[in-house]
Amino acid sequence: MNRPPLRLYELVLANGRSASPYVWRVRYALAHKGLAFESVPLGFTEIQRVFSGRFKTLPVIEDGPTMLAESWDIAEYLEHTYPAKPLFAAPAEQAAIRLFDSWFSPEVMRRMLGVYVQDVHNAARPEDREYFRRSREVRLNASLETLAAGRASRLPALREALLPLRLHLKRFAFLGGASPSYADYIALGAFQWVASVSTLPLLSHDDTVLRAWLERGLDLYGGCRRDPRMQPLFE
Amino acid sequence: MNRPPLRLYELVLANGRSASPYVWRVRYALAHKGLAFESVPLGFTEIQRVFSGRFKTLPVIEDGPTMLAESWDIAEYLEHTYPAKPLFAAPAEQAAIRLFDSWFSPEVMRRMLGVYVQDVHNAARPEDREYFRRSREVRLNASLETLAAGRASRLPALREALLPLRLHLKRFAFLGGASPSYADYIALGAFQWVASVSTLPLLSHDDTVLRAWLERGLDLYGGCRRDPRMQPLFE
Repeated sequence: MNRPPLRLYELVLANGRSASPYVWRVRYALAHKGLAFESVPLGFTEIQRVFSGRFKTLPVIEDGPTMLAESWDIAEYLEHTYPAKPLFAAPAEQAAIRLFDSWFSPEVMRRMLGVYVQDVHNAARPEDREYFRRSREVRLNASLETLAAGRASRLPALREALLPLRLHLKRFAFLGGASPSYADYIALGAFQWVASVSTLPLLSHDDTVLRAWLERGLDLYGGCRRDPRMQPLFE
Repeated sequence: MNRPPLRLYELVLANGRSASPYVWRVRYALAHKGLAFESVPLGFTEIQRVFSGRFKTLPVIEDGPTMLAESWDIAEYLEHTYPAKPLFAAPAEQAAIRLFDSWFSPEVMRRMLGVYVQDVHNAARPEDREYFRRSREVRLNASLETLAAGRASRLPALREALLPLRLHLKRFAFLGGASPSYADYIALGAFQWVASVSTLPLLSHDDTVLRAWLERGLDLYGGCRRDPRMQPLFE
């Protein structure tokens, strides 16, 4: 009897690319472990209905009888259930990467959202846009147009917030050191998200350290994460 | 034949406390490994002379014929030479903690220096103060008095910069997770440094998450890091 395939419910844009940095983390974790999966693309407005309110955010993973949301819970589930090709060398490494995420999510990804939220709106499926606008304008306490009008002036602070990555990547090939770790997948996931929607290049052309790491990162796992629908990350 | 004791050359203030956050990291690493050491306190102006220009910064460690500067190099040396009670569960954990440090040093410790640099000056040995003033005023491109005059207005940004620690410590007892890791020693070292000199409490009285972690951290290794010369960290 074959095990049914893993299913990844992922947030989808009009062009079919995944729209969530947290979904990208799980995609990388699955690729790291070499686990095949079936993608179930859902628009922003479909989540509530499909899960009857049980889950409000994506990613959600389905593995036989198990259904699970929250990317960290999913990473832990995958690690426990499929221990081959471990994502974490030790619980202490996992804690250190969560600490990295406690910086990266509020300091970097929050700034990315401030700069790219209107791009996400415009790239969403037409039927999701009104809901996306309403929910994000409440959360960010400003209209998408106001946020977009000021975004060029907020780009320098976003670039500056990436300094810790540059400092580290001057010493190491990956955030994980000699080989990629879940810290790389967290950061790559955020850049993948931006590249899915961006109409304003995130990085300066002379940001050579980040460029070299991004090239290495996007080449991982057979380069399957490169995609002609990606927008340029460099000016 | 007995091995000669490990020697730790550490930066010293007028009151005898160690003045460098990097020295504190090594003190914690030695305590973690249960390694006894002989302290060699040096003032800011003595480093050049004692090492004949070979080392310009402290900490420096002397272990038989080996002499070594730079706290990360020292941590790696200790780990390699005294593998019992490992500091790092795996190279991947070490890389993740260096990544944490690539955020913590420029974003948090740099802000701490901006707020407390005049306090360090005033707590230095009288014969070190002129050198300290001159070198730091060049590095920070402002007089100590100008920096001190604006420090209360920069305190909120410093407190805000500690948000990633709070987010993580809402979930875990230590930055290392269930038990302290070198990430805790990096952060505790910075708070020990501030507590050595501070005349302006760093933290708000209602910062309960950081307070609980600091209590746990300062109790580590028999509470030997608590010291009546410490200034209050909370207002």
